[in-house]
Amino acid sequence: MKQVVLAAYARGNPKASDFRIENVAVPVPGDREILLRVLYIAVDPLIRFSLDETTLTGATRMALNTVMVGPTVAQVAASNHPDYTAGDFVEGRTGWSEYAIVAPDKSDYRGPPRKIDASLAPVSTALGALGGPGQTAYEGVVNTGRLKAGETMVISAAAGAVGSIAGQIGKVLGARVVGIAGGAEKVRGLLDLGFDAAVDYKAPDFAEQLKAALPEGADVYFENVGGAVTLAVMPLLKRGARMPVCGYIAYYGVGMEGPGPDHLPGFYRHIMNKGLEIKSFAGMLAGQKGLQDIAAWIKEGKIRFAESIVEGIDAAPEAFASVFSGHAHVGKLLIKVGDPA
Amino acid sequence: MKQVVLAAYARGNPKASDFRIENVAVPVPGDREILLRVLYIAVDPLIRFSLDETTLTGATRMALNTVMVGPTVAQVAASNHPDYTAGDFVEGRTGWSEYAIVAPDKSDYRGPPRKIDASLAPVSTALGALGGPGQTAYEGVVNTGRLKAGETMVISAAAGAVGSIAGQIGKVLGARVVGIAGGAEKVRGLLDLGFDAAVDYKAPDFAEQLKAALPEGADVYFENVGGAVTLAVMPLLKRGARMPVCGYIAYYGVGMEGPGPDHLPGFYRHIMNKGLEIKSFAGMLAGQKGLQDIAAWIKEGKIRFAESIVEGIDAAPEAFASVFSGHAHVGKLLIKVGDPA
Repeated sequence: MKQVVLAAYARGNPKASDFRIENVAVPVPGDREILLRVLYIAVDPLIRFSLDETTLTGATRMALNTVMVGPTVAQVAASNHPDYTAGDFVEGRTGWSEYAIVAPDKSDYRGPPRKIDASLAPVSTALGALGGPGQTAYEGVVNTGRLKAGETMVISAAAGAVGSIAGQIGKVLGARVVGIAGGAEKVRGLLDLGFDAAVDYKAPDFAEQLKAALPEGADVYFENVGGAVTLAVMPLLKRGARMPVCGYIAYYGVGMEGPGPDHLPGFYRHIMNKGLEIKSFAGMLAGQKGLQDIAAWIKEGKIRFAESIVEGIDAAPEAFASVFSGHAHVGKLLIKVGDPA
Repeated sequence: MKQVVLAAYARGNPKASDFRIENVAVPVPGDREILLRVLYIAVDPLIRFSLDETTLTGATRMALNTVMVGPTVAQVAASNHPDYTAGDFVEGRTGWSEYAIVAPDKSDYRGPPRKIDASLAPVSTALGALGGPGQTAYEGVVNTGRLKAGETMVISAAAGAVGSIAGQIGKVLGARVVGIAGGAEKVRGLLDLGFDAAVDYKAPDFAEQLKAALPEGADVYFENVGGAVTLAVMPLLKRGARMPVCGYIAYYGVGMEGPGPDHLPGFYRHIMNKGLEIKSFAGMLAGQKGLQDIAAWIKEGKIRFAESIVEGIDAAPEAFASVFSGHAHVGKLLIKVGDPA
C-alpha cells in the first residue's frame, strides 16, 4: 500500500516536495484493533500547524518521516473489535495512507472512529458539511457570530469547506450573504450556492467591488483569512459588528511577525472606531445540535455540500500545497483514495 | 480671560507647541444661556483624535485657531436659564478656557451640563471616578470583561484615569489585579491603591517580571495601550480570556500603519491559540448604574479616586503633551483653572 510521509518541515507555505510517497506492507490488526481502508482524505489547512519546525503554534509538531496526520473517511476492512464490523463506514484520523490500523480503546480526546450513516448523504460529507467543517461553520455563524435575519454577513475564503457552508447557513437564517474568494470560477460557484454576491479578491478593483457589494456595510465578518482581504473588509463593518475568527490562512506560512509595515495599529483603530467584537471559537462546540440542524437543512434542500475531489493518494501532496497558493475549487477539497467495497 | 487654542494639527504625538494661549474678553451670556467659570480641565488622551489633519479616526476634526475641546468641571457664574443657578457645579464640555458660555437647550448628544452633587465627593471627581473614566472602567471590567471573583485581570496603562479605577473595581469584585505602568513611582502608586502586583514596562526585564506576576496567566486583559506592552501580555492570557479594548495609546500618534515588522500575524495567532474574545465598548453604556455603584464603593472606602493636579491654564499644553510621552502621575490628570467661589 501507499502512504504519504513528511519529508521536510514547511517553511512559509507548504510545497509538494515537503512530502514523500512510500510503499509499505498493509498492516495486520491485533487484538481489539481494526483495519481501515481509507476512501477519502480531507485536505485541511489547519494541518499546516503540525508541520512547523518551531513550536510557535501550540499544535503537536509532527516527527519527520512519519505518516501525515489528518481526518479521513474509511471503511472497516477487518475488525477484531466488537463495536466495528467489516463494511462499516467511519470518520477518524487515520492519516494519509491507503490502509491504517486503529485501536478504538486507545483513542485520544477526539474519541474512537465515528460511524457514518451512509443513507443520510455520501460518506465523504463526514469530512465536510456533516463533519468538522460543518460544525465549525455552524458555531461561527449561529453561536459566535449570532447572525440574525435581515443582517448582512461577509465571509473570506468563502469558497472553502467552512466558508461555503457558513454562507448557506446564513441564507437559511434569513441574512444577506456576501462571499470573498479568488478567481472567477469560485465567484460563480458561490453564486450557484445561493450567495447574494461574491467578490474576487484577485481583481484589481477588489476594494471597490466589495464596497459595492456591501452598500450598507456588514454586521458579521466570518474571518478565515487575515491579511489584505481583512484590511479591505474592516472599514466596511458596521458599528458593533461581530467577527468570528475561524482561521487566518494568509498568515499560516508566517511566524509571529510578517514583513512590514505594521498593520496592527490600523487593526486597533478599526476595533475602537467600529466597536468590534472579535472572537475565536472551537467548532466542536456546535456539537450534535449543529450536525443535526445541518443534516435537516440538507434534507430540506436548503444546504448543498460542495466538494472538489482529486483522484489518488499520489496527488495528495500537490493538492495540499494548492490550498495555500489559492486553488480554484469550491467547497471541501478531498483526495479520493479508494472506492467503497 | 485666557483660553487655549489649537495652533497646529498634531503629527505623531502632540507637542505643547501645537497649542497657543490667548487673552480674550469674558463673554456675556444671552437669553437662556449660562456663563460658566471653569475649575478643572480633564486631560483626556482621546482628544488626540480630534487633532488629526486626516479624517482617519471618524472623530470630529477641530478647526485650527479654535478653543480646545474637552470635558471640564465648572461653576455657574451667571445664569439666564431656569434650570441653573449661580454657584451650581456642573460637568460639561466647555473646552479649555477660563470662562465659557453654554446654551443648555442646544446641547449635543451628551446632553446639557450635568449638575454635580458637591456633598458626595470633591467636584473634580466628576471628571474621574464619578464621570466618564469611572463609567468606562466599570463597563470594561463588569460588563465587557465579565470579571469574576477568583479570576485574574491584568491592566495596561493601569496608573491612568481609567486603569486606576478599573483595578480597584477588580478588587471589589474579588479578583486578583495586576497593573502595568511606566516607572517606579507609578508602580508604587498602584500598590498603594491595592493592586496585587504592579510591573514597570520600562524595566529591561519587563516580560520576565510580568510573567512572574501572572504565574497562572490572566482571564481578563483590560487594554489601554497596544504595542510592545500588549505583545508581552498576550502569551500570558488563559484560553478563552476576554480583552476589553478601552484604548491603544501606543498607536494614537500612528496612522493606519506603523513601522514594520507587521505584528498582525502574531496577533491573529494569539486570537486563535488562546480562543480570545476582543471587544471594544462605550463607557457611557455603564450609565447611572455604574456611577451609583462607584459612588457607593467610594463611600464604603473600597475605591479611592486618584488625581494628579497641575496648576493653571497656562500649563495645559505641556500637561496634555506629557500624557503621550509617559508622565509620572497616577490617576486622572487635571488642570486646575480656578477655585470655587
